[in-house]
Amino acid sequence: MADVKKEALKISQEKGGKLEIKSKVPVQSREDLAIAYTPGVAEVSSTIAKNENAVYDYTSKKNMVAVVTDGSAVLGLGNIGPEAALPVMEGKAILFKEFAGIDAIPICLDTQDTEEIISHIKALAPTFGGINLEDIAAPRCFEIESRLKEELDIPVFHDDQHGTAIVVLAALFNALKLTKKDLSEVEIVVNGGGAAGIAITKKLLAAGAKDVLLVDKTGIISSDASDLAERHREIAQVTNLSHKKGDLHEALKGADVFIGVSAPNVLDPEWIQDMNEKPILFPMANPTPEVMPDAAKEHGAFITGTGRSDFSNQINNVLAFPGIFRGALDSRSSDITDEMQIAAAKGIAAVIPEDELSADYIIPDVFHPDVVDIVAKSVSDSATK
Amino acid sequence: MADVKKEALKISQEKGGKLEIKSKVPVQSREDLAIAYTPGVAEVSSTIAKNENAVYDYTSKKNMVAVVTDGSAVLGLGNIGPEAALPVMEGKAILFKEFAGIDAIPICLDTQDTEEIISHIKALAPTFGGINLEDIAAPRCFEIESRLKEELDIPVFHDDQHGTAIVVLAALFNALKLTKKDLSEVEIVVNGGGAAGIAITKKLLAAGAKDVLLVDKTGIISSDASDLAERHREIAQVTNLSHKKGDLHEALKGADVFIGVSAPNVLDPEWIQDMNEKPILFPMANPTPEVMPDAAKEHGAFITGTGRSDFSNQINNVLAFPGIFRGALDSRSSDITDEMQIAAAKGIAAVIPEDELSADYIIPDVFHPDVVDIVAKSVSDSATK
Repeated sequence: MADVKKEALKISQEKGGKLEIKSKVPVQSREDLAIAYTPGVAEVSSTIAKNENAVYDYTSKKNMVAVVTDGSAVLGLGNIGPEAALPVMEGKAILFKEFAGIDAIPICLDTQDTEEIISHIKALAPTFGGINLEDIAAPRCFEIESRLKEELDIPVFHDDQHGTAIVVLAALFNALKLTKKDLSEVEIVVNGGGAAGIAITKKLLAAGAKDVLLVDKTGIISSDASDLAERHREIAQVTNLSHKKGDLHEALKGADVFIGVSAPNVLDPEWIQDMNEKPILFPMANPTPEVMPDAAKEHGAFITGTGRSDFSNQINNVLAFPGIFRGALDSRSSDITDEMQIAAAKGIAAVIPEDELSADYIIPDVFHPDVVDIVAKSVSDSATK
Repeated sequence: MADVKKEALKISQEKGGKLEIKSKVPVQSREDLAIAYTPGVAEVSSTIAKNENAVYDYTSKKNMVAVVTDGSAVLGLGNIGPEAALPVMEGKAILFKEFAGIDAIPICLDTQDTEEIISHIKALAPTFGGINLEDIAAPRCFEIESRLKEELDIPVFHDDQHGTAIVVLAALFNALKLTKKDLSEVEIVVNGGGAAGIAITKKLLAAGAKDVLLVDKTGIISSDASDLAERHREIAQVTNLSHKKGDLHEALKGADVFIGVSAPNVLDPEWIQDMNEKPILFPMANPTPEVMPDAAKEHGAFITGTGRSDFSNQINNVLAFPGIFRGALDSRSSDITDEMQIAAAKGIAAVIPEDELSADYIIPDVFHPDVVDIVAKSVSDSATK
């Protein structure tokens, strides 16, 4: 880890950041100049001026994504501001390129005001085929995403909310195949009442789950609780329909699935014995999970998955966002809908043929060569529908 | 020309625009990912969070320029909007890269409101080492540039205003060497009362010219005119100090230099005989100059220069902006001052050794290999002073 930190600093300094712009056309002669710039470019501009839609045919817009942040919720570092967020956005931009051939550029905004952020992103939109929101704090991230989805005609996606949720869903699809259980019938406990937990819960419900318990530090969230937090009012209406009360241990009794986006070691492995048969556990707190996979297995876990690359079944959003944007851009979709996101999850799951699935292999490796193509096609097909 | 237009459309469509983003670091293995993205990148962000200035050491900011337009004054096409402006901004961006190794990206804003444009560009600034304003209509371009220069700590440059002015100045420096005249003593007629003419006039005065006449369709601009246009009030105070009256022909009588940024064929070649000895003429109206160089020479012009590449002495702003930004970024200057711009002009002029200067060679070719380095060094030295 120390080496990785050192190496990250070293390479960033030596290379002067992680990304560069390249020309796709030659600029070696006067003739090249006349074609790439004036007077030739006037013809391209005139063509678009006559038909605005031609901007997709003659410019980089169709393959260009802005990775936009306000620097308010960067990794685990918190509100470090736009300059300090830039290395993360550069990293994200090169992942777009390396995994999906998408040209992405960081835009680190010097404001944390919701309306200003919306206004700036809307003003930028003509240049871009899509907007990836990144590391923007809750609750403003919700308003920003939903407003931009409504007001822009290009796809907008907040990876922190949906990326992990989509990969969790993919992992769950495959895990349920192995346990021969049906998503609409399993009881799922989501531990963590923040933005990630809420997003995962919503995605599970959108995908067909019926029985989800959302649990935070105060216990199982219930619509009839007297002290229900404002941010939980909406989600409480569609989860915990039988109004269960109690802590995480209570929630786990009889549950089929545990999904953790909370804190290290909050799940006592002993509690796994109280879950339903063949329990599935995705403890994703980083870097230390809610329960260590080995301990979970010892106590009866059938399948585990974490956010870490040193255990099997890494739930990594790099599996999702490159293919999702590739599919959205290829189909020139104006949105990335819930259906497209669920299609992406099914695509990720489908990368592993059913006869190769095992408890230690429900999620493809991030470098699996088929991931982006399959996800992109699933998303594009879903968009076309 | 038809071929250039066709080729420009073809290459833009085939390549999907003219620029792409590339990673400068490898992303082929889990270790690469850990260094380029999480967890390694957190160390880079933390370092910048502790010392904001380190953003220049560890990110692409120091070499990244935004080419920003509102699409309101694009080439000769006028107010064609942000989408249709994108091909031009892409072209400009790749010129930055190919000539000066600068990573530049187009930002086409979906607003033409002065305050909104200023606000958006300020919000974008953390990502960029400099801002190149492009094809923004007058008079809003003046307010936008001057406000951003004041309010941002990175260099801001409006190429349409200053680029041509700097190259004109470079051409004039060398032309005056050949005619053995001194800038502070020559009489200069600038024909064209728009943004370009005003910018050139200001730059001439800043460089040491004392006797400039600015002429528009109504004749020589004079501070004592009863019908002085609002946009000319300031410039009238520092030009035409002897309050000459009359048309362009009148202005040219006894003048040493003619600079045209007006309209085709407005200068009757016969009038050149009324100019001072060894007259210098830069008729730059595009594509047809104020007077054709051949006709001008026949009537006594000593040196001519135009905007066209098919005559000698092409006054092309590609000679200026790449080296100017290279110098400003290299010296981490917070501004591109008049002094730096005049230093750039001297740099362009100095590319040609004095013993190689001739009436047909006062301006280096845009592909001359020394231009960017010499201009960058001149600008950087001037900034350091």
